[in-house]
Amino acid sequence: MTIIRIRSLLATAVACVLAFTVTLAQAADPLPSWNEGKAKQSITAFVQRVTTRGSKDFVPPAERIAVFDNDGTLWAEQPMYFQLAFALDRIKALASQHPEWREKEPFASLLKEDLKGALAGGEKALAEIVMATHAGMTTEEFEKSVSDWLATAKHPKTGRPYNQMTYQPMVELLRYLRANGFKTYIVSGGGVEFMRAWVEQAYGIPPEQVVGSTIRTKFEMRDGSPVITRLPEIDFIDDKEGKPVGINKFIGRRPIFAFGNSDGDLQMLQWTAADGGARFIGIVHHTDAEREWVYDRDSHIGRLDKALDEGRARGWTIVSIKSDWRTVYPAKQQ
Amino acid sequence: MTIIRIRSLLATAVACVLAFTVTLAQAADPLPSWNEGKAKQSITAFVQRVTTRGSKDFVPPAERIAVFDNDGTLWAEQPMYFQLAFALDRIKALASQHPEWREKEPFASLLKEDLKGALAGGEKALAEIVMATHAGMTTEEFEKSVSDWLATAKHPKTGRPYNQMTYQPMVELLRYLRANGFKTYIVSGGGVEFMRAWVEQAYGIPPEQVVGSTIRTKFEMRDGSPVITRLPEIDFIDDKEGKPVGINKFIGRRPIFAFGNSDGDLQMLQWTAADGGARFIGIVHHTDAEREWVYDRDSHIGRLDKALDEGRARGWTIVSIKSDWRTVYPAKQQ
Repeated sequence: MTIIRIRSLLATAVACVLAFTVTLAQAADPLPSWNEGKAKQSITAFVQRVTTRGSKDFVPPAERIAVFDNDGTLWAEQPMYFQLAFALDRIKALASQHPEWREKEPFASLLKEDLKGALAGGEKALAEIVMATHAGMTTEEFEKSVSDWLATAKHPKTGRPYNQMTYQPMVELLRYLRANGFKTYIVSGGGVEFMRAWVEQAYGIPPEQVVGSTIRTKFEMRDGSPVITRLPEIDFIDDKEGKPVGINKFIGRRPIFAFGNSDGDLQMLQWTAADGGARFIGIVHHTDAEREWVYDRDSHIGRLDKALDEGRARGWTIVSIKSDWRTVYPAKQQ
Repeated sequence: MTIIRIRSLLATAVACVLAFTVTLAQAADPLPSWNEGKAKQSITAFVQRVTTRGSKDFVPPAERIAVFDNDGTLWAEQPMYFQLAFALDRIKALASQHPEWREKEPFASLLKEDLKGALAGGEKALAEIVMATHAGMTTEEFEKSVSDWLATAKHPKTGRPYNQMTYQPMVELLRYLRANGFKTYIVSGGGVEFMRAWVEQAYGIPPEQVVGSTIRTKFEMRDGSPVITRLPEIDFIDDKEGKPVGINKFIGRRPIFAFGNSDGDLQMLQWTAADGGARFIGIVHHTDAEREWVYDRDSHIGRLDKALDEGRARGWTIVSIKSDWRTVYPAKQQ
């Protein structure tokens, strides 16, 4: 037995001690930011059912796939999707390189802080904003632009950096599921590479477990080095019917646990629920005017209407932010 | 401390005992089907470098991404890609439902066992064969058709089921990498869903770690239940420049270990090699006429020409099947 193999044994021993420590820590409440009640209970009861060996609902760890919408489910989405806030700030930052924008919509309105005017052009205007800010650079340059933005931008209502507007109860839920052998995925309408820049730190979800909308990219040699550049062309929209399609394409297994907050998540929830066996379906309901926002059926962002009806009819777990969450955001970091 | 929490502690203890057992087992040669020599040594030396804590080349486990081409790298690909053999057998199986095929190319030639005539129509003919056999059913129906085929079809030269024509040395390599904290991925020009039906059993690679070519799919309700149906339309070709694009899209991290066997893998190997730091790049060279096949620069399948030159010039590990592999296929199963 070589020194390296002894080291390997020691590493295993250390890992085991750590595993015991984590297990003991979980003997405390794993979901401290959740109030006691039906929602919390339905989560822990489900996890117990599918992880108890010998139970008829036992699911082997490899099949414990959990999927989460991001905007409005894992972090806030008001007064506008945060990725749109990123795009608008990028337009301002890039304006000096684009003098033509001063005369050209939707950029001209945006640069005059007239968001309504800019978005009056509908989907076409939105697409132009996205392409001007999300394409035409390498993947590495884009990642840097997202990280730089997160380091400086502040949310208009809370004054927090956007990546500190994650929901603490959901971060605990992700951690709790992983401690119970689940593989946690994001399945979001947001851009994959926008999310990959920060979700590992925020949620403990690695880049390869992020499913989202994509634009086309291209491999090319630049000065003898390979780069991947982002093209101004949509590849895949991971929303509504796109969510189960994205799950099938990127994960290739049906989840047993799914969480969303809007009608855009309905098909993902239906797809998860339909396979028989023990399934957990959760919906975050935005009910807290003081600590967050109140919106559902009539909202233009995160509209929750059909999914709310179907969730109630089918006994899915509807989480009320106001009554089910003890805290909303994580403790402020400096 | 509840009974459940004590159970959780016991489960951790059992996991630790298992981890020790695995570690001890690895103290034996982890690559018994590899002959001693430069290729084997370059693999084990690399793994040691990147997994030794404190070494300047140490790579944290989360970043130990290893990617493998499939056809000709993890399993054989002669006398034709096995997925094409599947498609041809499907045409025969479906012929009774398609009387019109008796008059219509490329099907008419195929049904007369005239492969050359059928493929005379070039890419268009091939696309028609693929679409007729890979689309127009749900994802679950397609998976079943692949499993059923594997259970009965035999390779014309070896008489083995196709999924017993995997390369035993590569299966050991995958296992060895995973035991050292690597996450192993397939990145293949083959169809994602064709591979997902069998690769977990053959290689220990789960569905979510398979990157490949895709066709478009659609989510829809059928008799009140959601299904995903496969459409006769190409979505993404994961070959050549498509391989780094696929890696970026599905994995979102650059690999540190890549293995291929043909010019179709060259861009993936370049992308992996280019990021600086410790990188392993391997190429399987088909040099064994007796146990496998001999082909490289002039082959129409798995052509290895530019990548062989670049690999030699850059000191990549070129594995000769004839001299580096003690065994080629796994022991026959019944």
